Amino acid sequence: MHIKSQFFEDYTLGDYRETLGRTITETDFVVHAGQTGDFFPHHMDAEWCKTQPFKERIAHGTLTFSVAIGMTATEINPEAFSKGYDRLRFIKPVHINDTIHVKVTISEKTESKKPELGQVIEHVEVFNQKEELVLVCDHILLAKKKG
Amino acid sequence: MHIKSQFFEDYTLGDYRETLGRTITETDFVVHAGQTGDFFPHHMDAEWCKTQPFKERIAHGTLTFSVAIGMTATEINPEAFSKGYDRLRFIKPVHINDTIHVKVTISEKTESKKPELGQVIEHVEVFNQKEELVLVCDHILLAKKKG
Amino acid sequence: MHIKSQFFEDYTLGDYRETLGRTITETDFVVHAGQTGDFFPHHMDAEWCKTQPFKERIAHGTLTFSVAIGMTATEINPEAFSKGYDRLRFIKPVHINDTIHVKVTISEKTESKKPELGQVIEHVEVFNQKEELVLVCDHILLAKKKG
Amino acid sequence: MHIKSQFFEDYTLGDYRETLGRTITETDFVVHAGQTGDFFPHHMDAEWCKTQPFKERIAHGTLTFSVAIGMTATEINPEAFSKGYDRLRFIKPVHINDTIHVKVTISEKTESKKPELGQVIEHVEVFNQKEELVLVCDHILLAKKKG
Amino acid sequence: MHIKSQFFEDYTLGDYRETLGRTITETDFVVHAGQTGDFFPHHMDAEWCKTQPFKERIAHGTLTFSVAIGMTATEINPEAFSKGYDRLRFIKPVHINDTIHVKVTISEKTESKKPELGQVIEHVEVFNQKEELVLVCDHILLAKKKG
Amino acid sequence: MHIKSQFFEDYTLGDYRETLGRTITETDFVVHAGQTGDFFPHHMDAEWCKTQPFKERIAHGTLTFSVAIGMTATEINPEAFSKGYDRLRFIKPVHINDTIHVKVTISEKTESKKPELGQVIEHVEVFNQKEELVLVCDHILLAKKKG
Repeated sequence: MHIKSQFFEDYTLGDYRETLGRTITETDFVVHAGQTGDFFPHHMDAEWCKTQPFKERIAHGTLTFSVAIGMTATEINPEAFSKGYDRLRFIKPVHINDTIHVKVTISEKTESKKPELGQVIEHVEVFNQKEELVLVCDHILLAKKKG
Repeated sequence: MHIKSQFFEDYTLGDYRETLGRTITETDFVVHAGQTGDFFPHHMDAEWCKTQPFKERIAHGTLTFSVAIGMTATEINPEAFSKGYDRLRFIKPVHINDTIHVKVTISEKTESKKPELGQVIEHVEVFNQKEELVLVCDHILLAKKKG
Repeated sequence: MHIKSQFFEDYTLGDYRETLGRTITETDFVVHAGQTGDFFPHHMDAEWCKTQPFKERIAHGTLTFSVAIGMTATEINPEAFSKGYDRLRFIKPVHINDTIHVKVTISEKTESKKPELGQVIEHVEVFNQKEELVLVCDHILLAKKKG
Repeated sequence: MHIKSQFFEDYTLGDYRETLGRTITETDFVVHAGQTGDFFPHHMDAEWCKTQPFKERIAHGTLTFSVAIGMTATEINPEAFSKGYDRLRFIKPVHINDTIHVKVTISEKTESKKPELGQVIEHVEVFNQKEELVLVCDHILLAKKKG
Repeated sequence: MHIKSQFFEDYTLGDYRETLGRTITETDFVVHAGQTGDFFPHHMDAEWCKTQPFKERIAHGTLTFSVAIGMTATEINPEAFSKGYDRLRFIKPVHINDTIHVKVTISEKTESKKPELGQVIEHVEVFNQKEELVLVCDHILLAKKKG
Repeated sequence: MHIKSQFFEDYTLGDYRETLGRTITETDFVVHAGQTGDFFPHHMDAEWCKTQPFKERIAHGTLTFSVAIGMTATEINPEAFSKGYDRLRFIKPVHINDTIHVKVTISEKTESKKPELGQVIEHVEVFNQKEELVLVCDHILLAKKKG
């Protein structure tokens, strides 16, 4: 974690960064259920899951999303702030012991409502250990312009 | 938490449900940092925050989102599944000791690519104890049709 | 979780409710040891347990009890409050990966010392995935009378 | 934590032991809600509690009970095992920042159904920092006889 | 946990105490990463570890150290305080499901800078379930003299 | 967190790096007690601490050490590994709400027993928000030589 100033002009379309991997553990499931209060059997009841088409407990969508976004949080940019996310999609289930990694690509740069800020889209892709895409979303940054 | 079948036809535009409240604690911040690995000083360094315009530690966007979505997880609908979220926006910062509650409104019903499924949008609004809107998003459900 | 008023008169002997299931994980053992400070080898030392008649780590009695009671906490009744528990018994050990569910039956209704309150007993039964009874107790509620 | 053999004959009526103190923190509330899934506003919604007669968040009964019992878990007796608890009563609410300590007194010794075992009652009293009794229960031990 | 006064003169060279065992779980790894913010793949990425000479995730040095020291925290001595540690060495990796126990030996007694205090070294050895030494360190205590 | 190869020759005496800050919370105390099993009243009993010269709960030495070392874990060097720590000293107590930051200085380079490795000492200093030194230690790295 470190600080690096990046203005709107400094973001280059097509640039990307990739994280290392992290194994999603049963502990992560239990901690996330405990934090959110979502104890749905899809995440918490191994016996019931065996009777379902997906066979195994499935990570909360918000767990995979939160961990993946956290994995990309390595560089603090004081010139930008997060506006939100678009097109968050759960493509494939994440199971206990899957190992995920994340790729973030600068996919769009547009003007914003305020002339001193530009909007940057970071396209976020989360892959499992088989390189299958499990989650995507578009992170919306508002970045100051230099001039 | 209970099971209740709801088909596409059972969702009525404008219907809404509201959760009780939950206070977001310092513990939630620390647990979320620990789960996601995001220890940015915005969330974790009370001294630095004092020197910033926002003065106090700010909840991770993924914390408010995850807790709010978890608060709505009370009814299991075996006829629908979550496709993802659109237009997730962080409207106002959430600070330690803020108490949030959530309102979910059926805001849109459309056909989906598969004729046997319809798409339902649940518009999610998260409010703090001053009834200020702090986060919004659109939850996308795919629900089976009855017939 | 929702609010529903129930007076003494509204409780009917023999009525019952059942929860969905929840798998008790190694994480639950570790979190419970951490919360209570009870690191007895029965719960925490897999090697020593292999040398004992029960072979595997056993859940703290307070873990099974707390989780089971929590699983029944779905309906807030503003007309009643909890006085305590009687006849809490640990019938069979709960091991890591056991999946428990809970049945709560209205088993007794009596007058209380205060004429405006009646005493209701909820008989709580906790079962594992083999439908073996692992824990029982009697929850004592004091509920307001209507009139 | 250490091992000390104590047979039925070794328990003396009236003997007692007392624990040191432990402050019940907001973290304990949040961790216990997360472990049990009980997010009732009595424990988790500081704003709503302000509108109630008790004014402040109240510890889950199972939290105070679990922590108190854990505080007494210092001596492993291979000659006895826990059968359960009787007369568990919540006498006064425990709030965030209350500091509890526990007194355990040998209050009863009786024969059990099995002639080789005797039943010992440990009367457990939990006090707050004002020396107010907040919780009591009777722990039922079955202890081997010497001869 | 109990209080026992021990002055410098009360420590005898060669005296030792041994703890019971504790299994280091995946949960411990995840909780420690979450507490420290160290999500290095050596501890958190099971897939990457398979490609390394050590094959399996390795406990953080600070995890093994912290748990081991915690396991020895059974007796509070109001006449002594901890100055620090010397010669902390990570001898062998600790993996998930290893069970550790700790031996503490009084290995050295010397004068300190202050005449009213003496310095005591507790040599700490941490073993796994195969009785292999995995970590050592020297705990430095400053203890009051009797007279 | 990223990977950067650094050989023995690449370490320069006097070079240093500094971390951002992190506030040590009550949650950190409770989580650390729960992980280590050390519930000594110095860390956990606010009432008792008021009667002591230090007045307030004090962080476990292993908590400050673990968090501080974790804060420096930003760069993975595949050419070096950790041998251990020397001269770990607890200089001043750390209390709840103190904010710490860490400075790591290359303070020593020496030959090791194995000719292909050199020993590097990272001197670690932990400061609170008043820039008071609270903990120091020497991290011992063994780094491969280039040639």
